[in-house]
Amino acid sequence: MSKNSLGREIPDIWRGRVLRPYRDPFSVQPEGPRVARPIRRVNPGDNKLLGSLREAIEASGLRDGMTIGAHHHLRNGDQVLNSVVKEIAAMGIRDIGIASSSIHPVHEVLIPFIRDGVITRIESGVNGRISRMVSTGQLDVPIVTRTHGGRGRAMMCGDIKVDVAFVGAPTCDEYGNICASKGPSACGVVGYSHSDADYADCVIAVTDNLVPYPAFPISIPQTKVDYVVQVDSLGDPSKIVSTTTRVTTDPIGLQIAKYAATVIDLSGLLKTGFSFQTGAGGASLATAANVRDLMRKRGIVGSFGAGGITGYFVDMLEEGLLEALFDVQSFDLKAVASVGRNPAHIEMSADMYANPFNAGCVVNRLDCVVLGAREIDTNFNVNVNTESDGTLNGNTGGHADTAAGAKLAIVVAPSIRARLPIVRDEVTTISTPGETIDAIVTERGVALNSKYQALAPDLRRRGIPVKSIVELRDEIYGITGAPRPIEFTDNIVGLVEYRDGTITDVIRQVKG
Amino acid sequence: MSKNSLGREIPDIWRGRVLRPYRDPFSVQPEGPRVARPIRRVNPGDNKLLGSLREAIEASGLRDGMTIGAHHHLRNGDQVLNSVVKEIAAMGIRDIGIASSSIHPVHEVLIPFIRDGVITRIESGVNGRISRMVSTGQLDVPIVTRTHGGRGRAMMCGDIKVDVAFVGAPTCDEYGNICASKGPSACGVVGYSHSDADYADCVIAVTDNLVPYPAFPISIPQTKVDYVVQVDSLGDPSKIVSTTTRVTTDPIGLQIAKYAATVIDLSGLLKTGFSFQTGAGGASLATAANVRDLMRKRGIVGSFGAGGITGYFVDMLEEGLLEALFDVQSFDLKAVASVGRNPAHIEMSADMYANPFNAGCVVNRLDCVVLGAREIDTNFNVNVNTESDGTLNGNTGGHADTAAGAKLAIVVAPSIRARLPIVRDEVTTISTPGETIDAIVTERGVALNSKYQALAPDLRRRGIPVKSIVELRDEIYGITGAPRPIEFTDNIVGLVEYRDGTITDVIRQVKG
Repeated sequence: MSKNSLGREIPDIWRGRVLRPYRDPFSVQPEGPRVARPIRRVNPGDNKLLGSLREAIEASGLRDGMTIGAHHHLRNGDQVLNSVVKEIAAMGIRDIGIASSSIHPVHEVLIPFIRDGVITRIESGVNGRISRMVSTGQLDVPIVTRTHGGRGRAMMCGDIKVDVAFVGAPTCDEYGNICASKGPSACGVVGYSHSDADYADCVIAVTDNLVPYPAFPISIPQTKVDYVVQVDSLGDPSKIVSTTTRVTTDPIGLQIAKYAATVIDLSGLLKTGFSFQTGAGGASLATAANVRDLMRKRGIVGSFGAGGITGYFVDMLEEGLLEALFDVQSFDLKAVASVGRNPAHIEMSADMYANPFNAGCVVNRLDCVVLGAREIDTNFNVNVNTESDGTLNGNTGGHADTAAGAKLAIVVAPSIRARLPIVRDEVTTISTPGETIDAIVTERGVALNSKYQALAPDLRRRGIPVKSIVELRDEIYGITGAPRPIEFTDNIVGLVEYRDGTITDVIRQVKG
Repeated sequence: MSKNSLGREIPDIWRGRVLRPYRDPFSVQPEGPRVARPIRRVNPGDNKLLGSLREAIEASGLRDGMTIGAHHHLRNGDQVLNSVVKEIAAMGIRDIGIASSSIHPVHEVLIPFIRDGVITRIESGVNGRISRMVSTGQLDVPIVTRTHGGRGRAMMCGDIKVDVAFVGAPTCDEYGNICASKGPSACGVVGYSHSDADYADCVIAVTDNLVPYPAFPISIPQTKVDYVVQVDSLGDPSKIVSTTTRVTTDPIGLQIAKYAATVIDLSGLLKTGFSFQTGAGGASLATAANVRDLMRKRGIVGSFGAGGITGYFVDMLEEGLLEALFDVQSFDLKAVASVGRNPAHIEMSADMYANPFNAGCVVNRLDCVVLGAREIDTNFNVNVNTESDGTLNGNTGGHADTAAGAKLAIVVAPSIRARLPIVRDEVTTISTPGETIDAIVTERGVALNSKYQALAPDLRRRGIPVKSIVELRDEIYGITGAPRPIEFTDNIVGLVEYRDGTITDVIRQVKG
């Protein structure tokens, strides 16, 4: 057990894995070559289209102890992972790890398979019942939460060895060209699966929309897909993509967005070539709306928007306020429609998005990112992984990646949620190190981290309350009181892995 | 020394390399994993744009004995490879191998650097003076001619280890996103460089059109490009891309095209979903013209055209006769303009085009390819590498790849060129094994290989003279006489490597 640089106790070894404690955002250097897929040969006339999931699993050579890859592009509508695991279980295969980009509530049907020892490892952040049960000791399966870039890095470096990757393919031809922007289950892009296609030993495309060769635009090409399986449905389209994502109408959210946009305005970054990312949350989009208005007013043409792409960013592209969009996952129907139509709306892999160990990822080029938070501490550390009751529920996603990459990383959050203080002495879990966060924006004011301290006078002149993070905490504690500490057992149920493979925090079982 | 299955004597070892003799088109199985690039880290703010070629070469760590990668997308207008080698020589680096997709006459300025020991290996087919000098013993540098798919395979398998790849980038941003379809030196696509980007230890983009981030559409992404260098010019645009490629007006060529189109018509392949490739030669395009007319007349919509793409195929795409184009190199200005505009005009890597050792290449999906030939023998073996005087002059390109992949591989050629018989007892060099060639079409008639013998009666009914390959040879010899055998020394100056890495033939020094 040793403390990492964030003050968290990290065991030397956990469930057989040697852990490296987090040190700082940028100094860990990679070693050795990338993982390399085995070389196979496919001759003219060879058939890649198999009759069922079972046939494909048999052909893949999946066996006890192996790890499967999956993605969360179908979000809470996904039935692919559920079907795959059911089939694996029916075949009597056990001790399987799941390496997904995220697990959603829809996957709670996997719980019996975890209980039965079919699934014994989850290499993914988890939303929903599975993680709450793991956190409370009702279910035993180790969970490793990674950033989106960190998943790409882990697959590249061999920290996760995916034996068989299953890619839900909204459109596919019999030779394995996967197109994500068309079909009844269209999800726009499959950015999280590109690393599976690059590094998994075997790649299986699962599609409910088999089209004549060639399917295009091509998200993942035939050269990386070993087998194709047709199924009735990839899932519930109404839960795969949001109809729309909306700017908040909540007055607190609007206040926060106004403050955040002013920070961006004064940062000096908002000029020709500005690059920008926000999440799909209402306050983030409201910030984007304010920034868009400033860009319009001043005739600023930005460079790119990145990350999960919303219709809001499509509008900015089509209005000429941005030159390009880099899309790792399409958040709504407008984004899905755009990626198949706009040449400037570019599908990117999670590797290109955020892997710190390639020749340069997109987050490195971000001027500004606007992020959410569940909790923030007085060192600017942010928690997006655990709930206020200490239970794990959430993926790190691109949070820590973009915070590290962007010149200006702003966290927007209400100061109080459900009577609990959001800014506090300590966050339950450190998802994103405070040294990569530049400003905390709440409706009670803005706290600036060291790099942007000089903005304080200008912000105040614009009528924005600037406070130290400690003042902000004190003011909030004055209303809510200090939060009651959560009681944990010594049992570590999961890890929060930083993008470079070091550990920022562990998840302990909640006492209860 | 042992005979391969084509009857050619192949040494066991040549210049330190153990040779595997060619056996058959499809049975060689790959072993082991792919080559893996080393993992590096690029942090926010790190600079990838270097001030000069020399700085980039220094940064790459290139040193004596290493191999550089290059491509021939700039064809006979290329100045990138010449500039790179000059700089390498000026830096005092020696014993460098060149692994290009082709060497052109424009590269003859490299001859002094070969003489001086700066360049000691050419892992590429060669057109022009270098190969003629090597063939006649005036220049000593081993030449390994590969197919386009074979180059991708060789890089994937580590048979060619490229230490530093130089990619001429018609448009590029400072972070290394390469766009081939825009800029003063636009060449449409850079399909041959994708394998360099995947497998070289270091990748340098050389551009004469540095644009604000991000450059797109992206041919090769920033994640695979280590350094970017700006130069005044990539070369001579008038020699980079043909203004137009044209259907032949020569009566012999038109006769051949008519015969070839009839073979295609009768093959049973010309129906919905038809896939098709021809070279840019006049008789090949005239064949395409006839096929297009048949498709129009019958309302046939084909699946795809592939290979090097000409404006002719762009017309077929835009007319709705083909659903898609897979483009590994754009042959003319119309193709260059199309690839940046038509979503159905898809850039493909040489790996996707033709590598036999991935999960399925595009040539495997070809119904019909129409190919040229310098010589054809009575076993249907084809020579595209050597001239009739025995000198090496030419790349195999996609010839052997598409012949192996396509259901119907047709070779079109005049029966006599410069008073020499094109069909003969033995070809000077076996570039493409006869067992992958289905029909030889000359103006004197058509010779069918075993798979399509059954077409003979129908062809005759259409008035096409069908002859055995021996009859065709005899008829031609009756006019030209048997060709005088070329005298060679025992000195092997080059190899003709098949797409699977085995050797179909060696190139011997011409006596004289």
